[in-house]
Amino acid sequence: MRNIKLIIEYDGKEFNGWQKQANKLNIQGEIENAIKEITREKTELIASGRTDAGVHAIGQVANFKTNSKIPIEKIPIALNTKLKKSIRIKDATEVSERFHSRYNCKKKTYCYTINNSKYGSSIYRNMQCHIPEKLNVEKMKKALKFFVGEHDFKAFKASGGSTKGTIRTIYDAKIEIDKENIHIYLTGNGFLYNMVRIISGTLVDVGLEKIEPEYIEEILLSKDRKKAGRTLPAQGLCLMKVEY
Amino acid sequence: MRNIKLIIEYDGKEFNGWQKQANKLNIQGEIENAIKEITREKTELIASGRTDAGVHAIGQVANFKTNSKIPIEKIPIALNTKLKKSIRIKDATEVSERFHSRYNCKKKTYCYTINNSKYGSSIYRNMQCHIPEKLNVEKMKKALKFFVGEHDFKAFKASGGSTKGTIRTIYDAKIEIDKENIHIYLTGNGFLYNMVRIISGTLVDVGLEKIEPEYIEEILLSKDRKKAGRTLPAQGLCLMKVEY
Repeated sequence: MRNIKLIIEYDGKEFNGWQKQANKLNIQGEIENAIKEITREKTELIASGRTDAGVHAIGQVANFKTNSKIPIEKIPIALNTKLKKSIRIKDATEVSERFHSRYNCKKKTYCYTINNSKYGSSIYRNMQCHIPEKLNVEKMKKALKFFVGEHDFKAFKASGGSTKGTIRTIYDAKIEIDKENIHIYLTGNGFLYNMVRIISGTLVDVGLEKIEPEYIEEILLSKDRKKAGRTLPAQGLCLMKVEY
Repeated sequence: MRNIKLIIEYDGKEFNGWQKQANKLNIQGEIENAIKEITREKTELIASGRTDAGVHAIGQVANFKTNSKIPIEKIPIALNTKLKKSIRIKDATEVSERFHSRYNCKKKTYCYTINNSKYGSSIYRNMQCHIPEKLNVEKMKKALKFFVGEHDFKAFKASGGSTKGTIRTIYDAKIEIDKENIHIYLTGNGFLYNMVRIISGTLVDVGLEKIEPEYIEEILLSKDRKKAGRTLPAQGLCLMKVEY
């Protein structure tokens, strides 16, 4: 059987998250239906991980198995023709039969976007979280460094979610400024439930000078969710890249 | 009477253009209603110019007169509280009673965005026009130079619209590349009906190597709309800045 790896971009605003659910519009179900239309086969589409309702992706990865003989270079356009415009298949490649999007994932990069202007944006409102109070970005950058490395991220995990353990490694973390927006990039070997949104919420507390950058270390060591900041809303989050 | 100048951002996708029309959602009407709610006065909001249905603005300018004593720094937040999230008042300043957003406008800057990836974007689909064929950007940059200066832009004007004459000056024109997107910026003393969208459509023909950059000069001199390219769709266009 052929194993097909897809790179997928989606507008999270339009869906109740990645995962298949009855009577709720979801990305997995939409793409599985499109695959069925072009291959005449029922298949399971395995993603690198679920994303919650409202969360976007520019580089989600998912794979499916098929006996269809459709040429690999025709797959993106064939699927895109069947899909809503809020989902785009950006690439398809044929991979070894053992390739598994979730189990083989080595690194993921997320971006959380904060609009730090006084009144927010109308055009980009569904792709960012608006924080009107001026944030101290230099302090946020300092705080971000404490997350890099292997840590127990228990304090930055929402209850729920089905992940093994709470130790994860962040390989890279950076903040980029683009006009009125603050983009927080995090690359790690895995992320706990709501971890990026809680880290971003805690960085907002640093930016507001409610806590000092050094306090991040204490929160990590405490393993106490109550010491970390609030969970920022889903619409600011985007899965940028998945590496294998 | 006080004269208040607003800077306005809006998501054009949600409206049938700037101008007030009965039974059609429009930006002017929405803001005039919000002004009435906060000042208790009926007023006319004068913009630097109309924008068509689907066209966005990051820096539209409009002014209105009022007897209300509401402090100037409270106006943006008061209006934003009344407005839909698809319109944001970004700033308000008090200006001389003679200031007129349309008559006093000296320069406008528009940006037209083309997504030049194979399959387009889901997240940004309402803020760009998708052209899947690879465009030769170097040739487009060369072509763009022919528009700079004072010219008769009759060949780049759609029928309709109520503008005086067809001679306009383009002060500055540039192309910026951002990942899979091509942003075409044009700054001029005024623009004819659909002028930016027709210029962008003609640049696409250059990018597709259907016409040579030098041919722009011939199109300008011909004053013949049929020689220029097609009008690209509204959703790729954004009014960036208005200068006085």
